[in-house]
Amino acid sequence: MKFSRTYTLKEISQISNTQYVGDDNFPVLGMNEIHVVEPGDIVFVDHPKYYDKALQSKATVVMINKKVDCPKGKALLISDDPFRDFNKLSLYFKPFQSASQAIASTAKIGENTVIQPNVFIGNNVVIGKNCLIHPNVTIYDNCIIGDDVIIHSGTVLGGDAFYYKKRENGFDKLLSTGRVVVENNVEIGATCTIDKGVTGDTTIGKGTKIDNQVQIAHDTVIGEECLIASQVGIAGCSIIEDEVILWGQVGIISGVTIGKKAVVLAQAGVSKSLDGNKVYFGYPAGDAKEKYKELALLRRLPKIIEKLEK
Amino acid sequence: MKFSRTYTLKEISQISNTQYVGDDNFPVLGMNEIHVVEPGDIVFVDHPKYYDKALQSKATVVMINKKVDCPKGKALLISDDPFRDFNKLSLYFKPFQSASQAIASTAKIGENTVIQPNVFIGNNVVIGKNCLIHPNVTIYDNCIIGDDVIIHSGTVLGGDAFYYKKRENGFDKLLSTGRVVVENNVEIGATCTIDKGVTGDTTIGKGTKIDNQVQIAHDTVIGEECLIASQVGIAGCSIIEDEVILWGQVGIISGVTIGKKAVVLAQAGVSKSLDGNKVYFGYPAGDAKEKYKELALLRRLPKIIEKLEK
Amino acid sequence: MKFSRTYTLKEISQISNTQYVGDDNFPVLGMNEIHVVEPGDIVFVDHPKYYDKALQSKATVVMINKKVDCPKGKALLISDDPFRDFNKLSLYFKPFQSASQAIASTAKIGENTVIQPNVFIGNNVVIGKNCLIHPNVTIYDNCIIGDDVIIHSGTVLGGDAFYYKKRENGFDKLLSTGRVVVENNVEIGATCTIDKGVTGDTTIGKGTKIDNQVQIAHDTVIGEECLIASQVGIAGCSIIEDEVILWGQVGIISGVTIGKKAVVLAQAGVSKSLDGNKVYFGYPAGDAKEKYKELALLRRLPKIIEKLEK
Repeated sequence: MKFSRTYTLKEISQISNTQYVGDDNFPVLGMNEIHVVEPGDIVFVDHPKYYDKALQSKATVVMINKKVDCPKGKALLISDDPFRDFNKLSLYFKPFQSASQAIASTAKIGENTVIQPNVFIGNNVVIGKNCLIHPNVTIYDNCIIGDDVIIHSGTVLGGDAFYYKKRENGFDKLLSTGRVVVENNVEIGATCTIDKGVTGDTTIGKGTKIDNQVQIAHDTVIGEECLIASQVGIAGCSIIEDEVILWGQVGIISGVTIGKKAVVLAQAGVSKSLDGNKVYFGYPAGDAKEKYKELALLRRLPKIIEKLEK
Repeated sequence: MKFSRTYTLKEISQISNTQYVGDDNFPVLGMNEIHVVEPGDIVFVDHPKYYDKALQSKATVVMINKKVDCPKGKALLISDDPFRDFNKLSLYFKPFQSASQAIASTAKIGENTVIQPNVFIGNNVVIGKNCLIHPNVTIYDNCIIGDDVIIHSGTVLGGDAFYYKKRENGFDKLLSTGRVVVENNVEIGATCTIDKGVTGDTTIGKGTKIDNQVQIAHDTVIGEECLIASQVGIAGCSIIEDEVILWGQVGIISGVTIGKKAVVLAQAGVSKSLDGNKVYFGYPAGDAKEKYKELALLRRLPKIIEKLEK
Repeated sequence: MKFSRTYTLKEISQISNTQYVGDDNFPVLGMNEIHVVEPGDIVFVDHPKYYDKALQSKATVVMINKKVDCPKGKALLISDDPFRDFNKLSLYFKPFQSASQAIASTAKIGENTVIQPNVFIGNNVVIGKNCLIHPNVTIYDNCIIGDDVIIHSGTVLGGDAFYYKKRENGFDKLLSTGRVVVENNVEIGATCTIDKGVTGDTTIGKGTKIDNQVQIAHDTVIGEECLIASQVGIAGCSIIEDEVILWGQVGIISGVTIGKKAVVLAQAGVSKSLDGNKVYFGYPAGDAKEKYKELALLRRLPKIIEKLEK
């Protein structure tokens, strides 16, 4: 997330109620999670294991729970609880705004776009031209939808990331300030759920077609011209490259990459990154030919064992 | 789909902007996909592999991308792109009509049927007597619902078929003109999705009970008195015969038949047709007893191998 | 379900059109399914196999299809069809009330709770303080929601139990009169479905976080501070103890208990109760380490067999 103007380090320190290391006027342009940080951004880190990663990331301002040496050209925000104080910034820069009507007055809807009855469109949503939004669709605040997009009924775009920190007294939620971005010519089936990015975008690439009841979690990026069949679930921060085909009920773990033109057969469970241009199935998903051999062998196994035991 | 009146071959040729082979006044009664064609129908074919199938089907008019010999008693529509020109006919005969209100004035709703708040009912929908349609249900245009039907919240009937043709520049959608037909005494759980047929009907047979989050794709026919548990997914053009039981999270591929009184256990993946009166499980789904043996053997395998290798 | 006042055995006999064994004024406090009966309750039983269980249960009044000896201190209701006559009582004590508006006038909504547009809230629903109910959520009659609860769009709380009796002429539905109870600090994702109890409560414990597209069936009790990932399905009458983690697409059969702090990995199928403090996966779900060994062996199997067959 980028701020609407450049803030100073001092201002950010006041908003987040943290100490700072750096020049009062050190410029701060936005805030982002470690996966998607850019120069000018604040990132947060609260575990020594990840200190180096955060300090050496592209982020220019590191909110951290230890007074470490400040890398050259960067600044620090010292907090006894960076998770909590990063949330403070989220609340300040993207406060939840309840709706006063089903279609927000700040939403921009393009020419020839049809919005059917009982649709909810949140604040600052942008929808392009020639789209068709079927009844009972929900589009949370700040989502961006291209031209010639079709969204079927009951689908929900922009729900919060499923992202919690375990505390002594329960789970603490990392507030989501990101967006869902749906590019041109996408079609999304009925009762799909696509969560917003934590601070960045969950993206559905141009021309991709998604069947009913598909779940796509926060910060996942789906490439162009993919086919995603019904009841597929894709966890957060994964990358599905262009022209990938995922058949029904496939599950994909978080943080992996599925290479271009890969095909994952029905009900497979993907637990690591997969190369493109290949066909996969099984749990954990592997090369389809190998898996078929295993299955065939498993079926013949009783007889093989019987023979060997003689 | 049948047309509202008999059209002439010449009229159809003009609407679809195709050449024709046959008498100007050759009667045309409707248009259908190859799975469900009937005499009087137009069917389309654009791949030499399927020419014979289309020409020998029950269809009387074949839209085809080659000047072939016209079978006796039939007519041809010659098109350089039958997929595109079949869509032209769909657009002409079933244009999408946006809604001016949540419950269409053309919808017919039977006596004693309760429609709860925030329900969408499209154009020409027919709902029988003594039904209960819970809040936030969406029923797209032209769906037909019998008597004594209960539909729970968030369910979507009549979404488009997930059916695309890959082109150089992306996916081209086959427009759906079919319907969902729900027979008497059916109950459908919450947030289910049942897509309309491409040109024909997706049917839920009399007395069948469907749990929450079930997906049923285009043109699939579910028999009478089936039980379908939660999160089952059934792909397109499949036939589930009477009194079949599908337990939770079962997945069924397109184009197969599940025989009468078959039982498919939870999470099974059905990849081919299954005989009736048997119990199945596993992936790919097989006879449950055989599969249990395989599982038992797999558990004992480490010890068996160890013994054999001595 | 407890009645609003104490009824007499005679009154209940008249409402249900059954004969009774016991004192006219024998007090009757409520009615419940066998899983959740308490003293003062009516329970029903219609199969000799379960007679003893029902007669010896905590229920004080047994609706039964045979004139058996009445246990001391209890009463009987003699019915030729207890399933039907139990339903008669359900209809009498909890008749379905159609809604005259999207948010029932009898609903109680706490301070600072935000209800977004297009939400349905049924009769007698209670929602606590500081909750956020996103658009297009459906909350059926009588559900109870605590403080600081977030419910995302498209979610449905309180649908009917998927519970039928097979009759000669089709399925007969057991009417649900229970509730969904969501405790404080719960977050529920988008398009989840949580069914009401048949006569008791389906409960989501304090601080539990549920991702999108999760299905939780009737009478299941989820403990405190659980994490339930997307597309998990939990069948009826199961118990998920505190701090359990269920990863994506897990399926859990009815009537089992998952012990405290158990972790079930993605896509696993749980077919029996599992001890706490362990990690599980596979179908049927077993100790993760054992299952990994089986998978590794399966992958090596072709070579092992080849070697052994030499």
